[in-house]
Amino acid sequence: MLKVRKPYLVFLGDVALRSDAKTGFGLRDWCGNDVIGEWALPEAQVSLELPRMTPPQAAAAGAGSLVIGVAPPGGQLPEAWIPTLRLALESGLDVVSGMHTRLEQFPDLVQAAKRGGTRLVNVRHTERAMPVGTGRRRSGKRLLTVGTDCALGKKYTALAITRELSARGIAATFRATGQTGILISGEGIAVDAVVADFVAGTAELLSPDNAPDHWDVIEGQGALFHPAYAGVTLGLLHGSQPDAIVLCHDPARSTIEDHPHISLPTLGEAIRRYLEAGRLTNPEVCCVGVAINSSSLSDQDWGRYREALQAELDLPVCDPLRGGVATIIDLLQT
Amino acid sequence: MLKVRKPYLVFLGDVALRSDAKTGFGLRDWCGNDVIGEWALPEAQVSLELPRMTPPQAAAAGAGSLVIGVAPPGGQLPEAWIPTLRLALESGLDVVSGMHTRLEQFPDLVQAAKRGGTRLVNVRHTERAMPVGTGRRRSGKRLLTVGTDCALGKKYTALAITRELSARGIAATFRATGQTGILISGEGIAVDAVVADFVAGTAELLSPDNAPDHWDVIEGQGALFHPAYAGVTLGLLHGSQPDAIVLCHDPARSTIEDHPHISLPTLGEAIRRYLEAGRLTNPEVCCVGVAINSSSLSDQDWGRYREALQAELDLPVCDPLRGGVATIIDLLQT
Repeated sequence: MLKVRKPYLVFLGDVALRSDAKTGFGLRDWCGNDVIGEWALPEAQVSLELPRMTPPQAAAAGAGSLVIGVAPPGGQLPEAWIPTLRLALESGLDVVSGMHTRLEQFPDLVQAAKRGGTRLVNVRHTERAMPVGTGRRRSGKRLLTVGTDCALGKKYTALAITRELSARGIAATFRATGQTGILISGEGIAVDAVVADFVAGTAELLSPDNAPDHWDVIEGQGALFHPAYAGVTLGLLHGSQPDAIVLCHDPARSTIEDHPHISLPTLGEAIRRYLEAGRLTNPEVCCVGVAINSSSLSDQDWGRYREALQAELDLPVCDPLRGGVATIIDLLQT
Repeated sequence: MLKVRKPYLVFLGDVALRSDAKTGFGLRDWCGNDVIGEWALPEAQVSLELPRMTPPQAAAAGAGSLVIGVAPPGGQLPEAWIPTLRLALESGLDVVSGMHTRLEQFPDLVQAAKRGGTRLVNVRHTERAMPVGTGRRRSGKRLLTVGTDCALGKKYTALAITRELSARGIAATFRATGQTGILISGEGIAVDAVVADFVAGTAELLSPDNAPDHWDVIEGQGALFHPAYAGVTLGLLHGSQPDAIVLCHDPARSTIEDHPHISLPTLGEAIRRYLEAGRLTNPEVCCVGVAINSSSLSDQDWGRYREALQAELDLPVCDPLRGGVATIIDLLQT
């Protein structure tokens, strides 16, 4: 398994949308002790509110890697970022990328890494061959976070659930499926970077047989309702064969982000569709709660929203960042 | 999109079993005008009953490529085939392979291609970067074949529908998504070999904007009900945004092939699930027929089965190899 040199300087490029910087926010919130600062191009409109440091300043302060903390759609590395990455490599920092574009495709970066004695690290790429899915049931318990859309809290929710299970003395492992999760947890496989035929098989590999009472809490990807990524979501669902799903949603959205012509389903409909698909590999799959990203709601509105939704769905509704996920774990323990 | 140079010389290696030469037979049956001959090693026990030509004879007769028309034992290219492939490359023929093994792994072939000014073409691999799906509606009409399982006639059905549309003077293009289909049509993309994030985007690329009355007939892959490949199927469905689907089924199967613990859905349920998923990118998607691989049924049983199913589903039911697909095209034209 790949080792990433901590601590990190997080680079935000020229990011315009908060949701595109979810890697950066994830690192700040879930391994904050390992992040010593942030850096961005002048055009950037998002900040992690961490100390701003140039790559040489971060290197002098002890950083091991510059981590690209922004995931633009399609994962292509913009040319405008190259000078900053070159500077980091020459200053003694590894450059760590979770994007589809391999850093080695840029001769400038390869040469800068040679000059700096540093490394180009592609978290999204895996060299090992992945297996085809078998559909075989595995021992142990599994929970998968799923969503009405991308980028609305599936990783956060899985991390919060893992934390809460551990706090209650229940054996649990967070299983990372995306670059940020891998950077946070130190292991995992970026399932969306696997050749399409092997997504379900990769998910099977990610949560192998385990003790009967152990919970694997698997970070979901994409959404069944996303016109580009639903296939990854479905393969991950089938390979994970979860006993429990938690649906993640952001009430500020009524359409798929960047696809205003595609409406989100209702939450009840979304749960129905995920369970229908999930039954293929685990006929007992059930939904144990809804995790809301309520950042757009006032305290009063959030309270009203939550109560109405709980009554409608007859399920625990929570915001991992606003009150935690205890009610979901309560249901899981019954 | 990958383009293959026609016409073909089909190479059968040292094949012993007819079933191992199904690529060769598929080429003969579906693009016979593009196949000018066959060649094999003296040990071969199967023939396509086409004119036998050495690679230099085929090149002199105008062939563009030698196509490997046989699945080698273990999926690996046997050393014994190399001299023939080298001769083809030096005679002016591209060598085209649908195997997992890349032809570039053989230095002899790389050098022969250089000497001959010819190409090594790995149909199963794609070098170009694929785009992320957009969900944008495209002009022209699209039909996608889907299945209750893998390997039960989705390619044959799509080819038969394309032929029937053309025979009626309706503009139609077969869009290949697997290696045999690509060899038949001379172009296409093996969607299951694409990185998972780009399956829908690849499918969008495969059937671009077209004339309003033009039909793209897209070869389906996998099945929504397959524990390993459903993700590929869903991405292909979303990116294809079909106006019409045709469900393919083999009545001899009650479970997913090689997965006896997973039952097939009923045909009505399968259609409902495909339409439900397909509406995401084309709200008007409808099912225009069912294509049955009836090889396990007697004439009498097939007649009974077909009539019962037609009554149950209120849709045309046909076997492309036993009476053709005319009833489906009739419905498409209404």
